[in-house]
Amino acid sequence: MFKQKGLLIVLSGPSGVGKGTVCSYLREKQKDIIYSVSATTRKPRVGEVDGVNYFFKTKDEFEEMIKKDQLLEWAEYCGNYYGTPRTFVEETLEEGKDIILEIEVQGALKVKEKYPEGIFVFLIPPSFAELKNRIFYRGTETEDIIKSRMSIAKDELQMMKYYDYAVVNDEVPNAVKRIQSIIEAERLRKDRILPYYEQWLKEEL
Amino acid sequence: MFKQKGLLIVLSGPSGVGKGTVCSYLREKQKDIIYSVSATTRKPRVGEVDGVNYFFKTKDEFEEMIKKDQLLEWAEYCGNYYGTPRTFVEETLEEGKDIILEIEVQGALKVKEKYPEGIFVFLIPPSFAELKNRIFYRGTETEDIIKSRMSIAKDELQMMKYYDYAVVNDEVPNAVKRIQSIIEAERLRKDRILPYYEQWLKEEL
Repeated sequence: MFKQKGLLIVLSGPSGVGKGTVCSYLREKQKDIIYSVSATTRKPRVGEVDGVNYFFKTKDEFEEMIKKDQLLEWAEYCGNYYGTPRTFVEETLEEGKDIILEIEVQGALKVKEKYPEGIFVFLIPPSFAELKNRIFYRGTETEDIIKSRMSIAKDELQMMKYYDYAVVNDEVPNAVKRIQSIIEAERLRKDRILPYYEQWLKEEL
Repeated sequence: MFKQKGLLIVLSGPSGVGKGTVCSYLREKQKDIIYSVSATTRKPRVGEVDGVNYFFKTKDEFEEMIKKDQLLEWAEYCGNYYGTPRTFVEETLEEGKDIILEIEVQGALKVKEKYPEGIFVFLIPPSFAELKNRIFYRGTETEDIIKSRMSIAKDELQMMKYYDYAVVNDEVPNAVKRIQSIIEAERLRKDRILPYYEQWLKEEL
């Protein structure tokens, strides 16, 4: 029996665009996909649960994971580490299941080097003013961090060109519907369907 | 102001798979897309309307269109001509509107030569037995025509490899939803969004 690898979907976008919120909502709506959980050394925000939103790690623990090559990608970002545990992603794909990674722009580009066949979705704010608001009103950050984030966000927006799709996050349910269409369409790519049909054609014709 | 060409979407598939039914239903559900109307010399089926389902032509009229290069593609199929009027398609795309062509497999491959950037969707039956049923029970054809259609359908199914997407027509509303996801996803391709955002980045950063 022919077995196909799962789809690797990477959801990314500039700081403050709402990747986490969109991904949480997608998680409720799209149950037939596996969600990769990132590791981070940053402090949990209100409502975030260890092992669901992130694996919260100490700096020492994270550096141990780096040393042992346990991360598919990792980056330091505003003084914190973020990374994707490798084994879970690799095993899920081998099992033929689709997996989604919600990660920072730097990390996404590293994943693209390893998985150029992945589907890279770039979340964009409806306007730059809106992005500023979102970073500002998140309220968890000091003024210095806000400034640093805005500057990074500007650079990150330029990274859209390395992605396959661009989805405006005007309203979360709309953004999620768009991402669901992308997942559906990618599953309908001829290259994914053809191997099954070739089997079928051999049997029936 | 930057203006982008529309998407050219080609919906095709083997004889009897239900292209016409799927396209009629899509037409009701997806109003923001233009539907190209083919020309044909075959007789109208019950419920088909001239200028909506097809432009019904005599053999002489059709051959005149061929001579005047008024067709984007045309083919002879079971003793009848089928073709796509050229000007309407070209003008719609230039206006930046998306257009869908529901055409036979032969014709689709000709369109692909001219528009390799088009989106080619191949409709497939849920099984070969089902395809046989559909051709048989359409009831408008003689036995010879049915045999000829089945033989052509077998060859046509092999053409899936030239397409971008494959959509199973198990139930018409399902097939239409899948096609709508493909249209949505293709509209979200980074190459379509980037030019607008480059403008936006220039203004705001």
